Amino acid sequence: MTSLRRVLVALALGAAQAFVRPAHRFAVSRRAAMPALRMSLAGTTPLKVAIVGATGAVGQEIIGVLEKRGFPVAGSPTLFGSKGGKTVQTGQWGALTTEAFSVEATKGYDVVFLAASGDFAIKYAREIGAGLSENGVVVDNSSALRYDDDVPLVVPEVNGQLCKGAKVVANPNCTTAIALMALYPLFLAFGLKKVIVSTYQAASGAGAAGMAELKEGIANAVQKDSRNLEEDGRFGATPIANSEFAHPLAFNVIPHIDKFQANGYTKEEMKVTWECRKMLGFSPIPSDQDTGLEPKVSCTAVRIPTLRAHSEAITIETEKPVTVEAARAALTGFPGLAIADDTANNLYPMPITSTGNYDVEVGRIRQSEVFENGLDFFICGDQLLRGAALNAVLVAEKARSFA
Amino acid sequence: MTSLRRVLVALALGAAQAFVRPAHRFAVSRRAAMPALRMSLAGTTPLKVAIVGATGAVGQEIIGVLEKRGFPVAGSPTLFGSKGGKTVQTGQWGALTTEAFSVEATKGYDVVFLAASGDFAIKYAREIGAGLSENGVVVDNSSALRYDDDVPLVVPEVNGQLCKGAKVVANPNCTTAIALMALYPLFLAFGLKKVIVSTYQAASGAGAAGMAELKEGIANAVQKDSRNLEEDGRFGATPIANSEFAHPLAFNVIPHIDKFQANGYTKEEMKVTWECRKMLGFSPIPSDQDTGLEPKVSCTAVRIPTLRAHSEAITIETEKPVTVEAARAALTGFPGLAIADDTANNLYPMPITSTGNYDVEVGRIRQSEVFENGLDFFICGDQLLRGAALNAVLVAEKARSFA
Repeated sequence: MTSLRRVLVALALGAAQAFVRPAHRFAVSRRAAMPALRMSLAGTTPLKVAIVGATGAVGQEIIGVLEKRGFPVAGSPTLFGSKGGKTVQTGQWGALTTEAFSVEATKGYDVVFLAASGDFAIKYAREIGAGLSENGVVVDNSSALRYDDDVPLVVPEVNGQLCKGAKVVANPNCTTAIALMALYPLFLAFGLKKVIVSTYQAASGAGAAGMAELKEGIANAVQKDSRNLEEDGRFGATPIANSEFAHPLAFNVIPHIDKFQANGYTKEEMKVTWECRKMLGFSPIPSDQDTGLEPKVSCTAVRIPTLRAHSEAITIETEKPVTVEAARAALTGFPGLAIADDTANNLYPMPITSTGNYDVEVGRIRQSEVFENGLDFFICGDQLLRGAALNAVLVAEKARSFA
Repeated sequence: MTSLRRVLVALALGAAQAFVRPAHRFAVSRRAAMPALRMSLAGTTPLKVAIVGATGAVGQEIIGVLEKRGFPVAGSPTLFGSKGGKTVQTGQWGALTTEAFSVEATKGYDVVFLAASGDFAIKYAREIGAGLSENGVVVDNSSALRYDDDVPLVVPEVNGQLCKGAKVVANPNCTTAIALMALYPLFLAFGLKKVIVSTYQAASGAGAAGMAELKEGIANAVQKDSRNLEEDGRFGATPIANSEFAHPLAFNVIPHIDKFQANGYTKEEMKVTWECRKMLGFSPIPSDQDTGLEPKVSCTAVRIPTLRAHSEAITIETEKPVTVEAARAALTGFPGLAIADDTANNLYPMPITSTGNYDVEVGRIRQSEVFENGLDFFICGDQLLRGAALNAVLVAEKARSFA
């Protein structure tokens, strides 16, 4: 028997054991951006809302999510920009003008979203929180406070109860928030010993300027003589200068997001490790008291030339035995997660289906080839929504639901 | 001590232990396409060479590699196309005209490259091999014969000795060939228990038509009104129709290459598993006699919008303890491999540096966060060169070196 035949026999045997997959059950929704999660504040008293950094990519998305979810805003949201006096067009509230930020100006507010720098958060977040209304909350999108013991790090569907009574809540790293949507239900059902993540991250992770740089690089390449393609593998001979990314991103892959750390990992990669651990209930870095039962998490973070949805290939080793069917059962119905796993119909998570949607898509669920108890799967989520603005608004809703 | 401070302390301790990295030593070569490996046939009698499928992407690259390496071709190579009578422009041999293929026409040849289908290889490869000159060899780029016991599967730097006396040699899958360049020296030095691969594969894996479809999709997107970007995350509203890929590839990520198998993996993913195992000296699929010492290999194969270099994020568990320094020492000097691992200077493997080069780049070498003995690293190689044409020509050189 040749090796080829043995392979074919093995595949045929596998086919006989294939699980039954009703195609409609796992079909991902193709709907346009619609609320995937119940609005918990409908009918409550309107809230005083402010957004710091309202003109950036995340700030803009927060405005959009507030509108689309019908968040009960008193009047219109107050927008703070890096400078005051800039006009922001909104759907629900017409043209709004940004104001220059001061802590004083946020006094008595119910919800303040920070879409600003880590330095800004360190300097002002707790002070803003102290001046808010009785049940007011600051939701910070920076990474500066995420590992502080007194600041909960929250994906509402995972650990939303931590919002109760918090004056400042940290919004997680985009890659981590997207990964957690699938990891958490699997953690609950099977336990997690090892998590290995390889990311496919969009330009939007570097904000509006990153998206613009990719678009400019792509447009420049197309405009140049494409005959060079056969010789150098790129459209055009000379890429545009890069400033947002470490190298030109068009037609490239850059395994470098955020700064390199002493251990050779980037800060983006370590954020995934630290934040997954914290949100699963462990200390961000392994403590001296690690019993060996704590999940080990590793990430390779890679920028690719897409615009605003992050994809992730994830391999896990579970504590308990797991099958593909049991994993599907554990993932099905988890709020904010859509199962896109019908390979017979070429259905799996992709940026072109998850962009603009609130749900994170999970698919390509397979039994691990390397772990006795383990899975491989693939996820994709809108970086600016689940990875930032949607999660921030859901945090605000959750925090206010305890008021 | 807050969690943040503990993280910072841990990083500072890590910094003190950081290895010394002379930047020049690990700087990847920036040279344009040049021979990376010694030409072993220089000065030998010219050989009768034929290429079947000469007008495809791989066939074209084979012609280029033969020229650039100064392969001793008697007269000019004979080109067989799907139809005869097509003109192919070459540098060294001017305009050549394709002929219609027949086994008869290859009789007495010394080297025949097959850049055709698996069905073609099954039908003709052994018959062509039987009619060649005494030390003649057929190098087949398809996957059809790779798992047959009587056909060696060869990356010359890894297991080139298997070419000796072979009438038909199989060229491996592109992703596998690129991965093996880094995996093999690590296997020799530390042993491999587990290999987990996530790929970032270029359009060229789907041939010239795949590259054209990506170019057309990108150009179409740029030409459309880019104001839609803010709403749907793509340039332009309507992607072009796709035929080479399962979905539009421009600004997208498609976790689907080749056909889905009964176990949920794609054939591309299983090729990586089977071919890594075979080239490391094990049966392609685990045998009943697996002692538990055989390496387990798993892959998630993903198409991204780049043109012709494949990247791969690889996590390994080794049998023996391994450090980053020891890994670098094991990788340094391996022929066909360039260490691109100087993060202080933003140097790591990327398509824009590896495209057109013979060497596979390896970098981002890190101690594993999940395995006690293990590493993470990132590689990038030209899919049409190491992944196909270069490897095929090197196989022919190796096979003829035994003549």
